[in-house]
Amino acid sequence: MPTPIEIALEEAALAAARGEVPVGAVVTGPDGAVLGRAGNRVEELHDPSAHAEILALRQAAGQLRSPRLPDCTLTVTLEPCPMCAQAASFFRVRRVAFGAYDPKGGGVEHGARIFAAPSCHHAPEVIGGLREGECATLLRDFFRAKRPG
Amino acid sequence: MPTPIEIALEEAALAAARGEVPVGAVVTGPDGAVLGRAGNRVEELHDPSAHAEILALRQAAGQLRSPRLPDCTLTVTLEPCPMCAQAASFFRVRRVAFGAYDPKGGGVEHGARIFAAPSCHHAPEVIGGLREGECATLLRDFFRAKRPG
Repeated sequence: MPTPIEIALEEAALAAARGEVPVGAVVTGPDGAVLGRAGNRVEELHDPSAHAEILALRQAAGQLRSPRLPDCTLTVTLEPCPMCAQAASFFRVRRVAFGAYDPKGGGVEHGARIFAAPSCHHAPEVIGGLREGECATLLRDFFRAKRPG
Repeated sequence: MPTPIEIALEEAALAAARGEVPVGAVVTGPDGAVLGRAGNRVEELHDPSAHAEILALRQAAGQLRSPRLPDCTLTVTLEPCPMCAQAASFFRVRRVAFGAYDPKGGGVEHGARIFAAPSCHHAPEVIGGLREGECATLLRDFFRAKRPG
């Protein structure tokens, strides 16, 4: 059975194949069951809020018919941005695990550091650096292929 | 013709009537045309990311069939949280106008101060305090009615 980060990597690769920035995410329950999985669909949906994390969180909440995912883990190939970090907090996930660090756009270990803000009511446990090389390579290859020349 | 903050207030009142935290939002184009309008639907959709701002931004982008809303204004009854502030930046709105300030949950003038972060690529112009009293009263009345005793 693939691990959560392997599922997230699969979703990231599928996103790349659709011409989307290759980020993938999965929400798993306490028993490891997959409750939601998605890749970026920003371009397809004309929706910059359609990040992999938001789509996967929404799927999981829909599946559980609950806006709270208290015993769940969000696993994503890239450090979540402030929007997705705040969403993960709102969805009350227990843990956020991610692959590549994102010093420019990340909002967990960088920038806004959403979970560390005094106003953050729920700070999930954070694990960074899962399959970091593969997660970063997917992104680097995607942007390299896009660059002219 | 109602002003954007009046439309946002209408949406907030409709949200309250649905049992949702009364926050409303509207996206207007450069000519003042309403491109999206929504109230909170967090409870109804089991989706903590279904804040009024995200729903209105998504509607507007869908209407324009573009993920960017460069000449548009997002008007909302409450200072956006970090999730919605980051979304407004991603959607590239020109201006964010809001009613009540939110020292506890806001992410524009408080907390994460998303637009002021060095990593924020697009910082909309910000106007706060529109019809502040009415916007705050709606929220206060809603929470007062919820409180036991």
